[in-house]
Amino acid sequence: MKRIFIASRGNPEQLAQLFRAELPDYEVLTEQPKPGDADVPYIVVGRPLPGVIRAVPGLKLVLSLNAGIEHLLASGEVPDHLPIVRLVDDGLALGMAEWVLAQALAWHRNLFLYAEQQARGEWTPQPEKLANERKVTVLGAGALGRPVAEHFVRFGFDTRVWARSHHEIEGATTYAGMDQLANAVRGSDILVNLLPLTNETADIVDLDVIGMLTDGAFFINGARGGHVVDADLLAALDGGKLSGAALDVFRIEPLPSDDPLWKHPKVRLSPHVAAPTHQHMAVKEMVSNIKRFERGEPIPHAVDRSLGY
Amino acid sequence: MKRIFIASRGNPEQLAQLFRAELPDYEVLTEQPKPGDADVPYIVVGRPLPGVIRAVPGLKLVLSLNAGIEHLLASGEVPDHLPIVRLVDDGLALGMAEWVLAQALAWHRNLFLYAEQQARGEWTPQPEKLANERKVTVLGAGALGRPVAEHFVRFGFDTRVWARSHHEIEGATTYAGMDQLANAVRGSDILVNLLPLTNETADIVDLDVIGMLTDGAFFINGARGGHVVDADLLAALDGGKLSGAALDVFRIEPLPSDDPLWKHPKVRLSPHVAAPTHQHMAVKEMVSNIKRFERGEPIPHAVDRSLGY
Ligand SMILES: NC(=O)c1ccc[n+]([C@@H]2O[C@H](COP(=O)([O-])OP(=O)(O)OC[C@H]3O[C@@H](n4cnc5c(N)ncnc54)[C@H](OP(=O)(O)O)[C@@H]3O)[C@@H](O)[C@H]2O)c1
Ligand SMILES: NC(=O)c1ccc[n+]([C@@H]2O[C@H](COP(=O)([O-])OP(=O)(O)OC[C@H]3O[C@@H](n4cnc5c(N)ncnc54)[C@H](OP(=O)(O)O)[C@@H]3O)[C@@H](O)[C@H]2O)c1
Repeated sequence: MKRIFIASRGNPEQLAQLFRAELPDYEVLTEQPKPGDADVPYIVVGRPLPGVIRAVPGLKLVLSLNAGIEHLLASGEVPDHLPIVRLVDDGLALGMAEWVLAQALAWHRNLFLYAEQQARGEWTPQPEKLANERKVTVLGAGALGRPVAEHFVRFGFDTRVWARSHHEIEGATTYAGMDQLANAVRGSDILVNLLPLTNETADIVDLDVIGMLTDGAFFINGARGGHVVDADLLAALDGGKLSGAALDVFRIEPLPSDDPLWKHPKVRLSPHVAAPTHQHMAVKEMVSNIKRFERGEPIPHAVDRSLGY
Repeated sequence: MKRIFIASRGNPEQLAQLFRAELPDYEVLTEQPKPGDADVPYIVVGRPLPGVIRAVPGLKLVLSLNAGIEHLLASGEVPDHLPIVRLVDDGLALGMAEWVLAQALAWHRNLFLYAEQQARGEWTPQPEKLANERKVTVLGAGALGRPVAEHFVRFGFDTRVWARSHHEIEGATTYAGMDQLANAVRGSDILVNLLPLTNETADIVDLDVIGMLTDGAFFINGARGGHVVDADLLAALDGGKLSGAALDVFRIEPLPSDDPLWKHPKVRLSPHVAAPTHQHMAVKEMVSNIKRFERGEPIPHAVDRSLGY
């Protein structure tokens, strides 16, 4: 009988039940297996407790409970020979597209500005631009970046996408590599960050990058807090370079109560909800990855540890 | 030389210049032509001043400056034999789709709720549904309703569309006629109104229709204030049947300062900006309609006066 160990910190029993329903021939454990026990080839894990992963006998595949795996890699808990698979379930890209477009369209069509006018009892139509009069840059063309860019294209935004390697996205202009970052970002009205957090991408949204945007641009961060130099972001908001920012992710979460982002009038923050995991879809995705692994097929969203994502 | 009379109330000279650039062989008037003058087959008009239209000699076609022509018809200023063409320029449907989706996604993904939590310094992830867990009903499948419905479908919303006649919209369920209104609306989470204002559609959004929605639903009005029974809307908001409403249009505009909608905490109002006219596109559209008319071709968006739209 094959074994799976659910090492999630919150409610492993709930996940285990979903796995049992999908894989009735497998034994699904929620208690730590010990060296010397029968082999447990699969572990399902978010942020691993120290020593947990290494103690599992016969482990062959690490199934991350998150799409971003920078914590898992930085923990040093995953031995080099073990493959890691990110969790990219069907709902993830859908949820992120909804959230990013909600933020982008709300800014583009002045929803929060009209809310302020309403509070003052003021009826003042603002000059309304069409999407094709706005440039958008999406950083990242992966599981999340690509579908987000496709929605921007469908609304008619002048859409540019930046990644490490070259991509083709119909209706968008694509850019690859650090050399082309400036070309991808310069003059944009909306900057969307959907990069993974790696050594190369940490602190990438700084005064240099923000400074290349158009005056009064809008920044949307759906990826990680560590991509953003907060002091630079605040300076750009206060100086008027940015007219606003929608932030779902922060260096420390929950965002500490004394962080200036909480009260900043131009910041709209949400508590890391842009693309929440839907447990049923997540388990289906992990089960299909286990089956691919057993058939010796390539697994989508396998982590390239040399690249860090 | 063919003649066009620009009878718009605000800045006719600006429109006239755009027409002259497109139609150098035409004489473009901004002063009222008088009976006995040379024929002026075309008039461009929004809300006509009394007697203006009838006084134009040799008039053949009325080009409305608005997409909604209920005021023009109700004015009684357009003689029965004259055809009327609505203004549906390329930007109109784009702008409406941006605005409706901005409102729908902002509600769906709790943007205003998170803004309230942020103001209280509160970090509380809300249960986030995916679009496919929400039912949307779009009233109207015309120049505006159809593209709006198509965007809802692309985001994965369970989309239903209601019109007078039968339509096919890929991915959406369509309903036709008053008999099917209840089936189209029952159980929806988001109701979007994009109907023309006619005798049949006036007051259509009342307690009956709102009462069929799911509890806590959201109402979006991008069409006309006259579609909505305001007392019923307010009762549904206060009673909790509706969790909110986004309103761009009102029975009286600007909305009078003592109207309770201004201060209602669940209402988001905007000053009739959902789909603003873009003058360059509008003139291009009217010019192409004039040319079709002269070639004896059918004109898109010609008004059926028996139907009132
Ligand atoms: N807020 C939330 O709720 C939430 C939820 C899920 C995920 N996330 C975050 O979103 C991130 C992205 O997820 P994903 O699934 O779209 O990742 P992904 O599929 O791995 O895509 C990453 C994209 O970033 C590009 N990239 C990586 N390093 C780069 C570099 N140095 N320079 C330029 N481009 C680079 C990649 O380029 P190539 O295509 O050339 O490889 C790829 O296009 C995750 O890592 C996670 O942090 C947030
Ligand atoms: N807020 C703004 O900025 C703004 C801007 C422009 C327009 N508008 C408003 O939007 C309205 C709609 O514009 P549009 O260009 O989409 O109009 P349209 O092309 O004429 O489409 C109207 C739709 O409503 C349906 N309809 C009409 N009467 C009906 C009835 N009695 N029962 C069921 N369905 C009925 C029609 O059905 P059939 O398809 O079967 O004919 C059609 O699908 C305009 O009239 C105007 O009031 C607002």
